[in-house]
Amino acid sequence: MTVPSTPITRRPEARAANSLRPLAITRGYAPYAEGSALIQLGGTHVLCTASVLDKVPGFMKGQGRGWVTAEYGMLPRATHTRGDREAARGKQSGRTQEIQRLVGRSLRAVFDLEALGERTLQIDCDVIQADGGTRCASITGAWVAAADAVDWLIARGDLSASPLRDHVAAVSVGLVQGQPLLDLDYPEDSGCDADVNVVMTGSGHLVEVQGTAEGLAFSRAELDHLLDLAQAGIGQLVEGQKACRAG
Amino acid sequence: MTVPSTPITRRPEARAANSLRPLAITRGYAPYAEGSALIQLGGTHVLCTASVLDKVPGFMKGQGRGWVTAEYGMLPRATHTRGDREAARGKQSGRTQEIQRLVGRSLRAVFDLEALGERTLQIDCDVIQADGGTRCASITGAWVAAADAVDWLIARGDLSASPLRDHVAAVSVGLVQGQPLLDLDYPEDSGCDADVNVVMTGSGHLVEVQGTAEGLAFSRAELDHLLDLAQAGIGQLVEGQKACRAG
Amino acid sequence: MTVPSTPITRRPEARAANSLRPLAITRGYAPYAEGSALIQLGGTHVLCTASVLDKVPGFMKGQGRGWVTAEYGMLPRATHTRGDREAARGKQSGRTQEIQRLVGRSLRAVFDLEALGERTLQIDCDVIQADGGTRCASITGAWVAAADAVDWLIARGDLSASPLRDHVAAVSVGLVQGQPLLDLDYPEDSGCDADVNVVMTGSGHLVEVQGTAEGLAFSRAELDHLLDLAQAGIGQLVEGQKACRAG
Amino acid sequence: MTVPSTPITRRPEARAANSLRPLAITRGYAPYAEGSALIQLGGTHVLCTASVLDKVPGFMKGQGRGWVTAEYGMLPRATHTRGDREAARGKQSGRTQEIQRLVGRSLRAVFDLEALGERTLQIDCDVIQADGGTRCASITGAWVAAADAVDWLIARGDLSASPLRDHVAAVSVGLVQGQPLLDLDYPEDSGCDADVNVVMTGSGHLVEVQGTAEGLAFSRAELDHLLDLAQAGIGQLVEGQKACRAG
Amino acid sequence: MTVPSTPITRRPEARAANSLRPLAITRGYAPYAEGSALIQLGGTHVLCTASVLDKVPGFMKGQGRGWVTAEYGMLPRATHTRGDREAARGKQSGRTQEIQRLVGRSLRAVFDLEALGERTLQIDCDVIQADGGTRCASITGAWVAAADAVDWLIARGDLSASPLRDHVAAVSVGLVQGQPLLDLDYPEDSGCDADVNVVMTGSGHLVEVQGTAEGLAFSRAELDHLLDLAQAGIGQLVEGQKACRAG
Amino acid sequence: MTVPSTPITRRPEARAANSLRPLAITRGYAPYAEGSALIQLGGTHVLCTASVLDKVPGFMKGQGRGWVTAEYGMLPRATHTRGDREAARGKQSGRTQEIQRLVGRSLRAVFDLEALGERTLQIDCDVIQADGGTRCASITGAWVAAADAVDWLIARGDLSASPLRDHVAAVSVGLVQGQPLLDLDYPEDSGCDADVNVVMTGSGHLVEVQGTAEGLAFSRAELDHLLDLAQAGIGQLVEGQKACRAG
Repeated sequence: MTVPSTPITRRPEARAANSLRPLAITRGYAPYAEGSALIQLGGTHVLCTASVLDKVPGFMKGQGRGWVTAEYGMLPRATHTRGDREAARGKQSGRTQEIQRLVGRSLRAVFDLEALGERTLQIDCDVIQADGGTRCASITGAWVAAADAVDWLIARGDLSASPLRDHVAAVSVGLVQGQPLLDLDYPEDSGCDADVNVVMTGSGHLVEVQGTAEGLAFSRAELDHLLDLAQAGIGQLVEGQKACRAG
Repeated sequence: MTVPSTPITRRPEARAANSLRPLAITRGYAPYAEGSALIQLGGTHVLCTASVLDKVPGFMKGQGRGWVTAEYGMLPRATHTRGDREAARGKQSGRTQEIQRLVGRSLRAVFDLEALGERTLQIDCDVIQADGGTRCASITGAWVAAADAVDWLIARGDLSASPLRDHVAAVSVGLVQGQPLLDLDYPEDSGCDADVNVVMTGSGHLVEVQGTAEGLAFSRAELDHLLDLAQAGIGQLVEGQKACRAG
Repeated sequence: MTVPSTPITRRPEARAANSLRPLAITRGYAPYAEGSALIQLGGTHVLCTASVLDKVPGFMKGQGRGWVTAEYGMLPRATHTRGDREAARGKQSGRTQEIQRLVGRSLRAVFDLEALGERTLQIDCDVIQADGGTRCASITGAWVAAADAVDWLIARGDLSASPLRDHVAAVSVGLVQGQPLLDLDYPEDSGCDADVNVVMTGSGHLVEVQGTAEGLAFSRAELDHLLDLAQAGIGQLVEGQKACRAG
Repeated sequence: MTVPSTPITRRPEARAANSLRPLAITRGYAPYAEGSALIQLGGTHVLCTASVLDKVPGFMKGQGRGWVTAEYGMLPRATHTRGDREAARGKQSGRTQEIQRLVGRSLRAVFDLEALGERTLQIDCDVIQADGGTRCASITGAWVAAADAVDWLIARGDLSASPLRDHVAAVSVGLVQGQPLLDLDYPEDSGCDADVNVVMTGSGHLVEVQGTAEGLAFSRAELDHLLDLAQAGIGQLVEGQKACRAG
Repeated sequence: MTVPSTPITRRPEARAANSLRPLAITRGYAPYAEGSALIQLGGTHVLCTASVLDKVPGFMKGQGRGWVTAEYGMLPRATHTRGDREAARGKQSGRTQEIQRLVGRSLRAVFDLEALGERTLQIDCDVIQADGGTRCASITGAWVAAADAVDWLIARGDLSASPLRDHVAAVSVGLVQGQPLLDLDYPEDSGCDADVNVVMTGSGHLVEVQGTAEGLAFSRAELDHLLDLAQAGIGQLVEGQKACRAG
Repeated sequence: MTVPSTPITRRPEARAANSLRPLAITRGYAPYAEGSALIQLGGTHVLCTASVLDKVPGFMKGQGRGWVTAEYGMLPRATHTRGDREAARGKQSGRTQEIQRLVGRSLRAVFDLEALGERTLQIDCDVIQADGGTRCASITGAWVAAADAVDWLIARGDLSASPLRDHVAAVSVGLVQGQPLLDLDYPEDSGCDADVNVVMTGSGHLVEVQGTAEGLAFSRAELDHLLDLAQAGIGQLVEGQKACRAG
């Protein structure tokens, strides 16, 4: 797999086309939650918490299986201009619902729900500061929060083994003026021709691929190139997850 | 591009893995709309209408550009068991919003919004009968409705040339027990390991790729195989669009 | 009972003042529903389904009696100009609620709820195309869907005898420029001085009479005349129900 | 017109089948409103106000015509057992919407909207105490409030002549154990076989007839009998309106 | 405690700075409620009802304790200009919610919830006419309704002793052009620099103090002065409660 | 003013009855906002932002005056057990609305709205971590964010002088087992007999006093004692505001 490594002069701070923004994950940022992590990927900061609830949705009751679900929000002034507060407007936008469904599916893909037992792992991803890629950062951070909540369950003796089968992380890639770039920031994302959000497991399998042509449609070859870039980036994000969990 | 052509005995009516379900597109099904089409793909029937509105959303006013947007709905008893009526429940589900945003983006990808002029093409996709693949059928049918509405605008002298740059169509593909299948029906979709909704232009460029692992994550090779299947299927759907418009 | 039979030249296709529009009822139009019918009365097309649900509303639980209820909707582009989608707006209009309550009451009037047993017959009436008289067509079509759902229950052995006591059908009548007309289409309805929606049983008893002066109030004599017209029309609609059920 | 005048021993306080409950209309009950009336019909008390608003709904702007519209509500403990507060529940029931649409239509039937000028007469009917027949009492009381608001407009010089063409009043009639009764109270209404709400002008023309079979469908002869009863009752209500306005 | 008794010429009807408006409390105004009172304080009229419900909120079930809660509403034309109907708008304003929470807390402060037993006393305060001070009048009137509902429970034998520990009443005080005034009417309230709503028990203890600077912030000395005024006023309101209950 | 300074052994970390929790204010925490501050008061952390919007609410247009308003939210897992996400539930609770109205009023009390010019200062207070006193911390932090936004307006030349007339800050005080305590944490707040939220200007004038008896009503002497405690605490909070703005 070869991806262009020449730094593009246009990226801020001389970032290479195939480089992630600086990554920092702070475990335990929300002290009351069973698991939590503040993930900072450049100017994008998301607080992810995992809450253990002793119940499952109605349609799953009595089956002995657990559930993992997610909600997503953005502080009104996480962005360059203030956005409406969804609670005040009285409903979540289509975008918000799309993202929280994606986060939930992504986490469930690496959970053995039978092994989790009849309880819910409720993920909350709240964007404190937004500079592009908030849905991907949410997934990457949520995995850390979830893993810590699993540890908490094991430490209490509620679980004897982990229901987590693998890591899961996500990154966005896109074509900006025809050039494939890894981990788009907000200005890059706004101006790109196509972007793809890729969710992968630690072992390199795909969980979600969401590619969208913002302007011009893209070719199979371009998609392949972007997926290569994403795979390399996700490898680094998974390393980041491992490092912070080891720390 | 080689895709397996051996018929799988499990598919209803001996359909091959790389075969679409029977396709029928009826133009002008909704006589009051500026453009309309009933698309039937096997047991999935969607009524698509395109309405010309002499206004654009507030954020676009005065720019001389047009807009294309879509709404999606499903009759409560389009499905095997009755679903809630969203109007009665007082809100659209996350799934509905996700689909209608996808349909809108897909159509916009082939429209020259400048050439459309300051008006809105409002697409409505209403599922009369649902047997899997309703979002893809909606896109394929909506293109026909939109093309007819464009003809109506040209016939009235409101437009001198078509703002439509290409066809756009969509199909779902998935891995069922490890085997790649084209155009999943509802039982196949419910039981698949991974499914990918692919939206492509008539010239074979990708507009959207939405791949989701329902159970196990999938490999790059599997994704490639599925995209090959989808591309061939979309070619046939575009032929169907052309045939019905020629008819 | 004498009603004017001279054709009025103003009605489309030389329809007489006391003539219904052409009627067609297609049973089983929604194959997944326990009962269904597409009713077409001229340019008004309504898809009616009857779903059997194994529950009753909370206030009826444990009484051994059943319930019949209805919901109504209209596709956004069923009409000459596009109407708002109620699901997107987040609530049903007063008109929609009024109609669905009327359809439910009308059907209940011919059902023996004790004999139905503790289950709900959920009627859905969705207007595919609207040219006036949609609430009346909904009632007439819903009866066929309900009768087929009852047959389904009997065929399964869930019921030994039919809880349906009679036919029920409905028609609108109105005064247009002083002249009583049967089965108003949309232009007639928009321009009439008074219209009356009449719901009757097969044996000619009144279930609902909803008369409204749109412009000028009307006299008792005019009401009598309109009720005569309606009664004759409903007789023909009941014949249509019988014919399609016999077919 | 002959209606039974023999007192039925079952009616409270020996009321005859063709007798109204005691009627009292208090003008000016809401001192801040341009017009207002508290109508008391036996145990049913409704406060009706008419507010003059210097605007019309968007669809009527610039046409020089006015509008008359109504809203209806019931205090939670107007009834024998407490009902939900609609404002707390976040929506008006179907019943409430049906009633307020009826009140608005009934008032508009006696208004010359051109003569009213480009302003809105906003009627509010709030049930303080409910013992059956609240929608009919609302119409009868609203007419008095509206007439007083018209006087206020004339007194200010905003109107030179009254846009009110006639009186309008309403009453319910019903079949209770086969016997036609005028002006049903709540127990009678709950137990009746059929009830008809009749809205009539002062000159005896029909504005609305809303007949509903609660149990058994009713015959044309029964409807005729009920309409006779209603007409006599409405005559007395109109006398009450005149008397209180003269007072 | 010395408060200025010199009449201020500006107050309507030569009311003194430390005088309440004329007070009248009519018990049993809502005959169907277990307890009710119409409180009239000058031009402010509030109908308060207390309904006994045989249930408690979910979070209190099975604890053997009761609950007291309140809802508040205002008729659209209780005020000088018509306000929106909250039921029609689909939600209660922040102001309404604030008031009903205050009324509930105030009543609970004088109730022994254990002694009430596992039932709810549901208070409804509906403003029929508003001339300032509606939240305070609601509390004062609600106490009378609640006390009567308690008597009803005792008379039925459902309670052997009263769970009411004390009276509770409320009044507003404010600084108008620097002068402390008791029981502000609407024009005074609109123009005041600061106003304080004070809720006190019959024994003179504070239940709630809600002071707000509308314009300029106020000093501790001014607050003290206002609380003195309020205490005297509440003493008179409690006398009014006692008098009407004795009557 | 003398307040008890003996440390109470029960308070965590040997905090004295008249001591605030450790205070830290971080300016510029939200880099995209015109002004922002993260305020940490012990375990309570609130992110406050001030956004400058070039518009005012409809009712203020064209008057040349500005507006200051606030919204408040709490992350679902800011608390010991997870709370519902208000955006997902579709409405803000009464408590949330009460708080955001209080924050808005408190800030407006120190703003010269004429001098602000026709623009809105939109305050957002989002609780990242909650251990009692979030509404008071919101006010204290919001002042810093607002002051920085004012500086931003002055630096841009949009304002020549500051419309801020004074500091404003807030603290909660309460009676816990009869003892007056300053700055309650969550366990103290849950168990207190009475608590008072006090909002004061830098010059020691009262802006808001919201005292509530949770259990037993409190005496005037107790209120006085609590207000003394609050005044001293607010003095320290204002010092904190000054220190961080000087830093």
